[in-house]
Amino acid sequence: LRGSTRSADFVVTGSWGQKAAQEAAREGAVHIAWDGKEHNYSRLPSDSQVRRSANAAYIHITSNETIQGVQFAADPDFGDVPLVCDSSSDFLSRPVEISRYGLIYACAQKNAGIAGVTVCVIRKDLLERVPQGLPTMLDFAQMAKYDSIYNTPPVFAIYVLQLVLRWLKNDIGGLANMAQLNQQKSKLLYEALDGRFYRGHANVDCRSQMNVTFRLPSEELEKDFVKQAEQRNLFELRGHRSVGGIRASIYNAMPIEGVQSLRTFMDEFRQARA
Amino acid sequence: LRGSTRSADFVVTGSWGQKAAQEAAREGAVHIAWDGKEHNYSRLPSDSQVRRSANAAYIHITSNETIQGVQFAADPDFGDVPLVCDSSSDFLSRPVEISRYGLIYACAQKNAGIAGVTVCVIRKDLLERVPQGLPTMLDFAQMAKYDSIYNTPPVFAIYVLQLVLRWLKNDIGGLANMAQLNQQKSKLLYEALDGRFYRGHANVDCRSQMNVTFRLPSEELEKDFVKQAEQRNLFELRGHRSVGGIRASIYNAMPIEGVQSLRTFMDEFRQARA
Repeated sequence: LRGSTRSADFVVTGSWGQKAAQEAAREGAVHIAWDGKEHNYSRLPSDSQVRRSANAAYIHITSNETIQGVQFAADPDFGDVPLVCDSSSDFLSRPVEISRYGLIYACAQKNAGIAGVTVCVIRKDLLERVPQGLPTMLDFAQMAKYDSIYNTPPVFAIYVLQLVLRWLKNDIGGLANMAQLNQQKSKLLYEALDGRFYRGHANVDCRSQMNVTFRLPSEELEKDFVKQAEQRNLFELRGHRSVGGIRASIYNAMPIEGVQSLRTFMDEFRQARA
Repeated sequence: LRGSTRSADFVVTGSWGQKAAQEAAREGAVHIAWDGKEHNYSRLPSDSQVRRSANAAYIHITSNETIQGVQFAADPDFGDVPLVCDSSSDFLSRPVEISRYGLIYACAQKNAGIAGVTVCVIRKDLLERVPQGLPTMLDFAQMAKYDSIYNTPPVFAIYVLQLVLRWLKNDIGGLANMAQLNQQKSKLLYEALDGRFYRGHANVDCRSQMNVTFRLPSEELEKDFVKQAEQRNLFELRGHRSVGGIRASIYNAMPIEGVQSLRTFMDEFRQARA
């Protein structure tokens, strides 16, 4: 989508944004329009803090960063440049203002189904930018032209996606309801972060509803926390190895009961050490 | 694997070989070392008929062509140039002399599992040829370096592949047994091709054990054949739209009983018109 004369602008808010910018730099000019590295990726920019390059073909964001646990609270608005969004980890977790986006892409394995399929929603006019001669598997225009079946598609993964979409529509009642549930779930955990015993990684206004990241007073206590949690059937709470600490991933499929169990454990674990 | 100064040689024996050569030509020099087009892709070359270019980085073959129904009977030997093989449609259908190959790649959805995963077996020394800066998803060296989990892999498709491999090993008794079964299955159908009523597409010595392709005396009869077959629960017998006729795909998962049913129907259909 960048073409040969323009730059791809990146708003880097965490590990996935970094990787996306690195990958894009293999093929052409990249401009970092904002980078949260100096804040240890604990916060997001306001729309006005993002510095577009003069010839930006698009601006890329990662709507939710799973490792740092920061998430754009609302669809950003950087003016009249197409917004490209890696929405892999919060796709279908809430409604989006789709008209703001030029391209949304999301691998399915967080909220939408199983690993092995990526959903892409692209504005038709952007397809005209795709240059001739790309490897077909990287060519959005070919994929669109052949209705996504130029190659044999991952049929089972698409079928599971269909089941998830039906569940969202019929059982949950749509994305607005899903968003409300996700707010309730994340609130249960964020309420427990008191800043002394449990210290949240993300700034309060940048907190992710998908990945709740926090530290304990010591790494010793963090190890203890993970171990005791497992004894209560609360698994996968260790933070990503690149940042440490604790991470509770509470995607759509995690029921509120699971989050409540974790909250209860968090309270008890703290009280036992008060 | 080609590098910037060498050519990729292609032995084109059908539709998939054509597509592979077209795709490779997007990125560099391609030399067609043999093309079966003038024979309507009904036969394969002998090893000596293949004309390598002087600076071939590799020679690419398609071991089985699903649409035309031609298959290399044995692992070819084109001398000391790495053999790259799209084995998508006959992988795991028979033993291969693996030392002949530089790279075998095979999407799973014919004999190995469900769509959405591709198995690649590559000689380690060829990984050193991979240039810096390729898109990571097209970079064999990166995939090998990260044990195929640089990205989240298609877990379910890999799990199904594991089940199929266990079935092949424990229930079938290995690839030699599988090959014998596939020979029996294809023989049942090829025996019925008398050259007058049922005319096989592939030359006798190039016949595929996976896809049995043939014509009837008229397109009218072919339509009738497909329709009556469906009344006997024999489905998907229409040939690929690009070549017409009849195609019986009898991959590993098709039991011999299914092939016997088709054979019985073929005999009866012919006898009713004798």
